[in-house]
Amino acid sequence: MDIKQKFGLKIKELRKLRGLSQEKLANLAEIDRTYLPTIEKGERNVSIEIIERLAIALGVKIKDLFDE
Amino acid sequence: MDIKQKFGLKIKELRKLRGLSQEKLANLAEIDRTYLPTIEKGERNVSIEIIERLAIALGVKIKDLFDE
Repeated sequence: MDIKQKFGLKIKELRKLRGLSQEKLANLAEIDRTYLPTIEKGERNVSIEIIERLAIALGVKIKDLFDE
Repeated sequence: MDIKQKFGLKIKELRKLRGLSQEKLANLAEIDRTYLPTIEKGERNVSIEIIERLAIALGVKIKDLFDE
């Protein structure tokens, strides 16, 4: 599993823990609602700014998105 | 200071701790040697794959690049 896939799974896990739909999280993070599913599938080489927006939207620190 | 600037400073700090030149770190991370200085200056919206390569080259985990 590469880093994009690991990151996507972490986003999906935290999103579900918070009871958020993909559309709701996309809105909170101000990213396109068609972009989030591809991030969760590990298909996107996301940028540090997108990573930060997802962390803020999920209420965690960036480092928490990279916990093993 | 935005996330790109914070990240750049962290890379610079760890690079110096390890006694590496910018050119040496760029070689280790397999990124262009003209790209690394702009990352350290906080001018680049780096991707998760570049972040991973820098972490590996510096011998740390990705989360260590986002410690406060």
